[in-house]
Amino acid sequence: MRLGIGDTTKPITPSILKGLNYGVERLGHVETYRGYGDEQGDIRLKASLVKYYSNIGVNIYSSEIFISDGAKPDCANIQSIFSLENVVAIQDPAYPVYVDTNVIAGRTGQFNKEEGQYEGLVYMPCTEENNFFPDVPSRQIDLIYLCSPNNPTGAVATREQLKNFIDYARGIKAIIIFDAAYSFFILNHDLPKSIYEIDGAKECSIEINSFSKIAGFTGVRLGWTVVPKDIICENSDLGKINTIWNRRQCTFFNGASNIAQEGGLAALTEEGQEECKELVDYYMENARIIREGLKSIWLVVYGGENAPYIWMKTPNNMRSWEFFDKLLNETHVVGTPGIGFGARGEGYFRLSAFGHRENIKEAIESIKNNLRL
Amino acid sequence: MRLGIGDTTKPITPSILKGLNYGVERLGHVETYRGYGDEQGDIRLKASLVKYYSNIGVNIYSSEIFISDGAKPDCANIQSIFSLENVVAIQDPAYPVYVDTNVIAGRTGQFNKEEGQYEGLVYMPCTEENNFFPDVPSRQIDLIYLCSPNNPTGAVATREQLKNFIDYARGIKAIIIFDAAYSFFILNHDLPKSIYEIDGAKECSIEINSFSKIAGFTGVRLGWTVVPKDIICENSDLGKINTIWNRRQCTFFNGASNIAQEGGLAALTEEGQEECKELVDYYMENARIIREGLKSIWLVVYGGENAPYIWMKTPNNMRSWEFFDKLLNETHVVGTPGIGFGARGEGYFRLSAFGHRENIKEAIESIKNNLRL
Repeated sequence: MRLGIGDTTKPITPSILKGLNYGVERLGHVETYRGYGDEQGDIRLKASLVKYYSNIGVNIYSSEIFISDGAKPDCANIQSIFSLENVVAIQDPAYPVYVDTNVIAGRTGQFNKEEGQYEGLVYMPCTEENNFFPDVPSRQIDLIYLCSPNNPTGAVATREQLKNFIDYARGIKAIIIFDAAYSFFILNHDLPKSIYEIDGAKECSIEINSFSKIAGFTGVRLGWTVVPKDIICENSDLGKINTIWNRRQCTFFNGASNIAQEGGLAALTEEGQEECKELVDYYMENARIIREGLKSIWLVVYGGENAPYIWMKTPNNMRSWEFFDKLLNETHVVGTPGIGFGARGEGYFRLSAFGHRENIKEAIESIKNNLRL
Repeated sequence: MRLGIGDTTKPITPSILKGLNYGVERLGHVETYRGYGDEQGDIRLKASLVKYYSNIGVNIYSSEIFISDGAKPDCANIQSIFSLENVVAIQDPAYPVYVDTNVIAGRTGQFNKEEGQYEGLVYMPCTEENNFFPDVPSRQIDLIYLCSPNNPTGAVATREQLKNFIDYARGIKAIIIFDAAYSFFILNHDLPKSIYEIDGAKECSIEINSFSKIAGFTGVRLGWTVVPKDIICENSDLGKINTIWNRRQCTFFNGASNIAQEGGLAALTEEGQEECKELVDYYMENARIIREGLKSIWLVVYGGENAPYIWMKTPNNMRSWEFFDKLLNETHVVGTPGIGFGARGEGYFRLSAFGHRENIKEAIESIKNNLRL
């Protein structure tokens, strides 16, 4: 029973399917056929996103939005527009793409096996002590990756926590790369869904988001990135970061699939949003079942309340991989060892709420009945 | 009347549409829904491409094929797996992405305005004298971009010409990046559609191809790249280039849209291939109309016989942009100034065969009647 992969399992909902079908349909007629679209994305989809942000009180211009084939490529490529001299800070644990792409780019030194960390990267520990959200670094940084709701810990940054980072970034002219791919899973209305809900964020933050998890588009491929024209950073005029990202996208990318974009448009309609909400509710009920199940046998769990990931402390201070083997052997459940997300993930284990309800229930029952604690 | 853009205009054909519809349809049912696919692409699609190559006498393994969201991103990203010290040779004129991405990567020096070329790049002139296919460079090169059928000149490399480059590359352990995005437009059976038709190519060549122009997928986004395990190059073990590209794709990319891939599968069936052939025939008839029309008024034209582009010499040695203005003002036809593809494109003009038949005919009639020579 797999609780390991962060992949969607529910079919795409009717009105979004209709959008995708319309996307295919229009390619079959000479009157409605379209070839290359804008590298930055369909203007109708960008307008829908402007409206989405406006609904949560955030003012974003269409020219600040770049439609992409998903959050992963954007998270991976965004570093390429910055100098190799830039100092990068990442949360530890974190989604591996932030680290791997900076390593490949050559922005880090050697891998220190003992510490499980790359030289030259600034790791911001996310631990039980700080409730899995880091303090601002105590040194000069150029690029700061933040992910909220967090993969893998499921922690969500509060307004105050983001404000601290924004003030810090503005003070030293650093840039925050804010991965909001799981923002739709935030059920608590006091928690910010976009970093731009916090004053000053547009001067220092790039936000990356995705249709993958809310609309079931993990295989369809559609996401977006906001690069505000207000960003101020060292050696860069106002608007320059937006211009450079635009240049990068126009040179290396040829737009997201027009079929996927029709699906995205449908997902942002009122009907589509209601369906997305139902999908989110389904996965969040899975998360609740996992949380409650594990807590009932006195395991220590975090996350899973405003995020589709449950971050579990391994019992008896077991190492992540040791627990992986134990869980598999005793309960036939597969999860993700925390160490895979960084050194501070050691001793933790990620369980994913993406899955069919019956499988989730069966897995949790098996853990409750068979895990020897 | 636009003869400028290399974009498809014909609707997607019935059996390929059916494939796309099936791709959407299966996402709507829990039994057939799929999330993330392999970063390297659907194994069924890779198997179809293995068969496609086998049909032209070329032996490619599935693990050497990487499905992508189009030839442009692959042409752009392929350079990223090579050292910044590598010396790059490109055809002049050439598809601008080869140059631009190497410039952005930092593999070139300053732009020399007088020569219209970047320092540090090795330009291989494609001129009337060499029938628009270059001789091998006379110095040590690491990466060689070749495009055949060529955008913009419409020239197609012969077996002998490719053999020369392959022998040269093998001799100095260089790598050829072979852009075959227009290979389906080759009507002459003596001309190679894949560089792998030539002995030794698998030891030194990466081939990039696309569904864009044959299946009308410019907006759907689907392509592929072949990275043979046999490639031998300086400081690299056998199979290493394949491994590095795989690593790059797994880190920066999350697979092509599964809907597009179903369309690609349909395009590679016997029925799909017949429909693609009809599309190609349509555009090639457009090319014939453009060629014959221009020749009838004694203009000098190249290409357009095994490629969808006509490369026209401007009359009276006019500069490309001067002719652009003249053509627009006198005939209301828009084309692409050759200088946009490099210094050796000066004095030439690219006309595209992608377009509706009536528009093409109207444009050519207007040129014949209104262009003052």
